[in-house]
Amino acid sequence: MSKKRGFDKILLAHGSGGKAMHDLISSMIVPAFNNPRLEPLDDSALLQLDGRIIAFTSDSYTVDPLFFPGGDIGRLAVCGTVNDLAVCAAIPLALSCALIIEEGLPTADLQRILDSMKSAAAEAGVEIVTGDTKVLPRGKGDKLFINTSGIGVLPPDRAPLPGKAEAGDAVLVNGPIADHGAAVMAEREEYSLRAEITSDVAPLNGLIEALLAAVPETRCLKDPTRGGVASALNEIAAASKATIVLDEESIPVRKPVASLCELLGLDPLYFANEGKVLAIVPGDKAETALGAMESHPLGTGAAIIGEVKQFDRVPLAVKTPFGSHRVVGMLTGEQLPRIC
Amino acid sequence: MSKKRGFDKILLAHGSGGKAMHDLISSMIVPAFNNPRLEPLDDSALLQLDGRIIAFTSDSYTVDPLFFPGGDIGRLAVCGTVNDLAVCAAIPLALSCALIIEEGLPTADLQRILDSMKSAAAEAGVEIVTGDTKVLPRGKGDKLFINTSGIGVLPPDRAPLPGKAEAGDAVLVNGPIADHGAAVMAEREEYSLRAEITSDVAPLNGLIEALLAAVPETRCLKDPTRGGVASALNEIAAASKATIVLDEESIPVRKPVASLCELLGLDPLYFANEGKVLAIVPGDKAETALGAMESHPLGTGAAIIGEVKQFDRVPLAVKTPFGSHRVVGMLTGEQLPRIC
Repeated sequence: MSKKRGFDKILLAHGSGGKAMHDLISSMIVPAFNNPRLEPLDDSALLQLDGRIIAFTSDSYTVDPLFFPGGDIGRLAVCGTVNDLAVCAAIPLALSCALIIEEGLPTADLQRILDSMKSAAAEAGVEIVTGDTKVLPRGKGDKLFINTSGIGVLPPDRAPLPGKAEAGDAVLVNGPIADHGAAVMAEREEYSLRAEITSDVAPLNGLIEALLAAVPETRCLKDPTRGGVASALNEIAAASKATIVLDEESIPVRKPVASLCELLGLDPLYFANEGKVLAIVPGDKAETALGAMESHPLGTGAAIIGEVKQFDRVPLAVKTPFGSHRVVGMLTGEQLPRIC
Repeated sequence: MSKKRGFDKILLAHGSGGKAMHDLISSMIVPAFNNPRLEPLDDSALLQLDGRIIAFTSDSYTVDPLFFPGGDIGRLAVCGTVNDLAVCAAIPLALSCALIIEEGLPTADLQRILDSMKSAAAEAGVEIVTGDTKVLPRGKGDKLFINTSGIGVLPPDRAPLPGKAEAGDAVLVNGPIADHGAAVMAEREEYSLRAEITSDVAPLNGLIEALLAAVPETRCLKDPTRGGVASALNEIAAASKATIVLDEESIPVRKPVASLCELLGLDPLYFANEGKVLAIVPGDKAETALGAMESHPLGTGAAIIGEVKQFDRVPLAVKTPFGSHRVVGMLTGEQLPRIC
């Protein structure tokens, strides 16, 4: 059996958000639970209750370090789960907070993180209603891991998003990409650039509501976290049996982030984002969607970054400033462990 | 600030399910989230949606070892969360499964655990619908931690349980106590008794439905996990401003478990259970409740173990075979880290 799945131990890459993680999920987890709702693409499961649709999602956060420019593990845990509900077009209703604490964590750090969760929850307009606390002996964990799970509801008059792109659709993002990944990497490695780079971690439910109000025909929303924009769009393209072509020049990247990427020879398309959403909308709604994003404080740097075409050999390609196209696959291997 | 709360670092005891954990939750977590639903006593939060009541709960599992007589971390994660929903009188609807895996975990172990989760979910009649996978570098975790969160619904005609005991009520348990704690302790320490001791980990939703059908007047249900029967009944008594008096001779404890407890000088009332529920019912319904439990395969060893009285100095006392009473407080310190 392990022969069939091609690995007999879990590797760091299995947590990357890229190809190895998808292999693990499709070869072991989905078959184990044998449940059509457990599609790797979905950020939340959708359940029916008395005709209402409930979204349900869960994420564990293991980011290292706990504090980074622009945020901390607590803010990340609240925003990440809120965003997983929001990209399913659900209004976040309630979150849980389950702490796994390593013995010896200073209570001042825990207090700061709990306060940060409270602020982020207030910002998102969601309540933390239940929780759990476990403590690990020293050396058996790493300071703090947080699981937040969330429940959301679709408004009564809203159907789930189709979740698939069609040829002719436009691809938008609400601002500069790669900030979170770059901020954590710069902090961890103590690069001199780090003073200029800040995580984008933010709750996107307000911006997404504004977008859906303006463009209810939105086909698909996805927050490009682990694995970055490249992996998220590969997933959407594969699920849609289409090819997405991005225009490299129109993809917003802040200058210090671009410099860091050049320095390290890494592609910002693979860096994690925690306050960005990719939106696929019908081509003739692209400008309306852009306007809706730009009118929200978290979308002032929004851009139309590409288009969806009939499937043509690869899921995702990027048109370079020289007019050539490069193929951009899913993240392989592990670029930066414990980014979220 | 840390002076006020009396500790400046997190200690193992803060994960015990006993007094230290309650101090942590009341001094830091409840104030941080400032939410009346976050009462330490509740196993799930109850939310209103269109007149229906939804229960929402979350638990992380860090049990060591991953496999123990009678179960494993996967079975524990499914049953624990199902039981937290069921003791709130909710029908479990869906679970999440978030894995935090240490690099190097044999995939064969992971497969065995996922299969065990699948079986336990089938046994409980609940689906695992969403999940998450994170991988920690070697040495930053301990093989595997699992968070399961769960959503349940109260049947349309069922009100939430009062959650409080009244003088004259009877206290029941569905079978011998302390099996889970004893099984994990015996396995970890390799006591020779361990061949005879098996964890009781099981989903209790079926038994609880049978009980609620027979005794809809049930006041309060609680699964005595970390901190054991003693801590659970202390919580109920405190919330009810009553005194619970147990009859020591009527508390079922299997012989090898009793022997292990004697050997170690520990009280089975503080040992964790993972397939037991404490039920408080009006005194005149005690026999009906007992019959309902006994008619279910997980309740064949059920017993009436005590009664609720007007508050008399202490929350919980145990009447010994000699007719004397001993006071049984909440668990203080940490009896056995990582029991669940």
